[in-house]
Amino acid sequence: MTQGGTNLPRVGGYNQAVVLDAIRTAGPVSRVELAPLTGLTSQTVSNVVRRLLAAGLISESGHAPSSGGKRRTLLSPRADGAFAVGVQLDPDAAVIVVVDLAGEVLASRRVKLADPADPAEVVKRVAAAAQRLTARTAVDPARLLGTGIATPGPIDATAGDVVSPPNFSGWGRVPLREMFAAATGMPVAMDNDATAAAIGERWIGGRARAGSFLFLYFGTGIGAGIVLNNTVLHGDSGNAGEFGHMAVQPGGRTCQCGSTDCVGPYVSPSGVMADLLERHGAATARRLGLAGTQESAHADWKALCRAARRGDPAAEDVIRSAAARIGRAARGAAALLDVDRVVLGGEALHGIESIMCEEVDAAVNTTSVARSIRRVAVERSVIGEAVGAVGAASLILHGTYAPGWRMLTQA
Amino acid sequence: MTQGGTNLPRVGGYNQAVVLDAIRTAGPVSRVELAPLTGLTSQTVSNVVRRLLAAGLISESGHAPSSGGKRRTLLSPRADGAFAVGVQLDPDAAVIVVVDLAGEVLASRRVKLADPADPAEVVKRVAAAAQRLTARTAVDPARLLGTGIATPGPIDATAGDVVSPPNFSGWGRVPLREMFAAATGMPVAMDNDATAAAIGERWIGGRARAGSFLFLYFGTGIGAGIVLNNTVLHGDSGNAGEFGHMAVQPGGRTCQCGSTDCVGPYVSPSGVMADLLERHGAATARRLGLAGTQESAHADWKALCRAARRGDPAAEDVIRSAAARIGRAARGAAALLDVDRVVLGGEALHGIESIMCEEVDAAVNTTSVARSIRRVAVERSVIGEAVGAVGAASLILHGTYAPGWRMLTQA
Repeated sequence: MTQGGTNLPRVGGYNQAVVLDAIRTAGPVSRVELAPLTGLTSQTVSNVVRRLLAAGLISESGHAPSSGGKRRTLLSPRADGAFAVGVQLDPDAAVIVVVDLAGEVLASRRVKLADPADPAEVVKRVAAAAQRLTARTAVDPARLLGTGIATPGPIDATAGDVVSPPNFSGWGRVPLREMFAAATGMPVAMDNDATAAAIGERWIGGRARAGSFLFLYFGTGIGAGIVLNNTVLHGDSGNAGEFGHMAVQPGGRTCQCGSTDCVGPYVSPSGVMADLLERHGAATARRLGLAGTQESAHADWKALCRAARRGDPAAEDVIRSAAARIGRAARGAAALLDVDRVVLGGEALHGIESIMCEEVDAAVNTTSVARSIRRVAVERSVIGEAVGAVGAASLILHGTYAPGWRMLTQA
Repeated sequence: MTQGGTNLPRVGGYNQAVVLDAIRTAGPVSRVELAPLTGLTSQTVSNVVRRLLAAGLISESGHAPSSGGKRRTLLSPRADGAFAVGVQLDPDAAVIVVVDLAGEVLASRRVKLADPADPAEVVKRVAAAAQRLTARTAVDPARLLGTGIATPGPIDATAGDVVSPPNFSGWGRVPLREMFAAATGMPVAMDNDATAAAIGERWIGGRARAGSFLFLYFGTGIGAGIVLNNTVLHGDSGNAGEFGHMAVQPGGRTCQCGSTDCVGPYVSPSGVMADLLERHGAATARRLGLAGTQESAHADWKALCRAARRGDPAAEDVIRSAAARIGRAARGAAALLDVDRVVLGGEALHGIESIMCEEVDAAVNTTSVARSIRRVAVERSVIGEAVGAVGAASLILHGTYAPGWRMLTQA
């Protein structure tokens, strides 16, 4: 329960991760620059760099311009140093990617899920598709570290189970991590989709995502991933970032959790669609080409986003009011966490990023702290639409290579 | 911006803090037990224990019952190993305490602030009172480490300034840390009151406050302190835990921040008093002996709490509805942070802890995650009413002795 101590072997592993992180974030960079960047002595930096070169994780990539003396050799991360598979699981489809150490997507595929109510069938289908995709990329199998799964929550992080995710009808407690490990024969990491996306953003975003940020993830519902001082917050049960249950509207719509004041039911695609019918009528929905059935939900949402993007007043109205509600909840979250950056991303943001960013920006910059001390930056994902799947792959890469508390301590 | 590396001297200091923390949290405890508790080898534990004994921070305190072999010597923290002064600053008064390493209050005093609009006068008066109080306790000056200040926010943590705190009329940016350092001639640590209280709770609460928790602090307003994995969240600007700006009530009362949906204006003593007048009329206020003037605010609030405690329906009604609103905001915060413990405390909770705990408990245990995976415990402060001032003193003790990330890394 209290913190654990550390020892020399752990320090070695940790410092190696620190140097790799600095090269990945600031590179190309010379050995001389790495010492002040990491706080390590030049002797330690030299030793660690030698180990990273031998492991094939970095390479010497030219020389810095001479400033009189000997020209300094620059170090860069090696994209082909390691690879991972990422799977973003949603009720209707799975997005699968193969990613290299630099976060570049080498191949990707979207797999429709014919029978999403059957977890075993889903795992079998996705694992087979991942295997075919990996084979196509011809990555060195020895450098393929594993598969990351991003799934809607809630999850039991210790067991690696998803626990009755509201968007997967018929799923109770499903040992997803174990099932994928058995099906792929590889190490498997699992996290909820929003946290995976935040880890991806931290892993790939370089300087722009160093420090702390709140990541708002738009998928089937809305969730948040939280990075504080370069460390991902997992939470006591592995479910940190349950943004959808922020209470913003007393006496409002009933949420899947039973409460009547959650932001979730107002800002999910189905919630926004309900707003459209309520405020602009069925005729408007027809005019925008929305079928309004369970099966058309995905296509309807895309069409509504497209309409908002081209300035249709009804579509823009409902999307802006959802964005404003998200902004109000985000304002509370940003003030609570005191992060100076909010990042928006996820599959469901079909081109409405700028509307979302505008409204969230307006909302989070109204509190006294924000106004008198600093502005909160509101930005879109550096990864874009695939942030869920790339984030899933980052679970493996980040888990293996990012310098974390857990590398140093046990107990 | 990225994480710094570490080295042997830092590891030594860190491991010493880890062992002291384990003894403080789990003690009395033997050297043999400390190894698995800290993850350190028995050789390292022995060396560190020798240093802690020599520094006068722990003592050998008897023997464990024999289990056949040699009886094990037990180690306990030494209360007289170090001392700190704590100051909780509020607009109308300052509470000053002298605390030992065990968190025991050796002396305390409440100082009325005659001219709270003049920061220089406040600092002079409080520093003089602290000096007299310390002299009375006869603590070893060589072991008095410094003074901690808990102040309403917002603060500029880097500069050590408070920045236009809404409850101190006339204060702009005030370099409070520097002013107190000059007035006391001692090291000074400063944090906002809620964060200081959370640090105090972590420092003194032992096993019951290890891990993660959200601390709701009731002072002039409401604030939160956040402890995640035994580490206090300070935030990018040093203002983490701004709980009062959680948006729970659209189109409601105007907050000091300009928003119209914050929880703060509903749950502060003045907000609850406004509810009483609105819902139960001036006659009820008179019946309860409330004068309703600016000057009587403190006494009125105490009287209202007393009335609620003895079951007066009007008083209980308004306090319960404030508690329910706090609960709704806390539900969002607990889901976002995924903490399995919420702790309530602070000067303003005059005996209404059980009403508050009941309502917050009901609210935070309604989300799907909480229900399906674990229950959130809602508990009152282990320190009680003085948690602000004791928390302030803990800023010094915790800052000096608690094992933290900052001990290990730089850059």
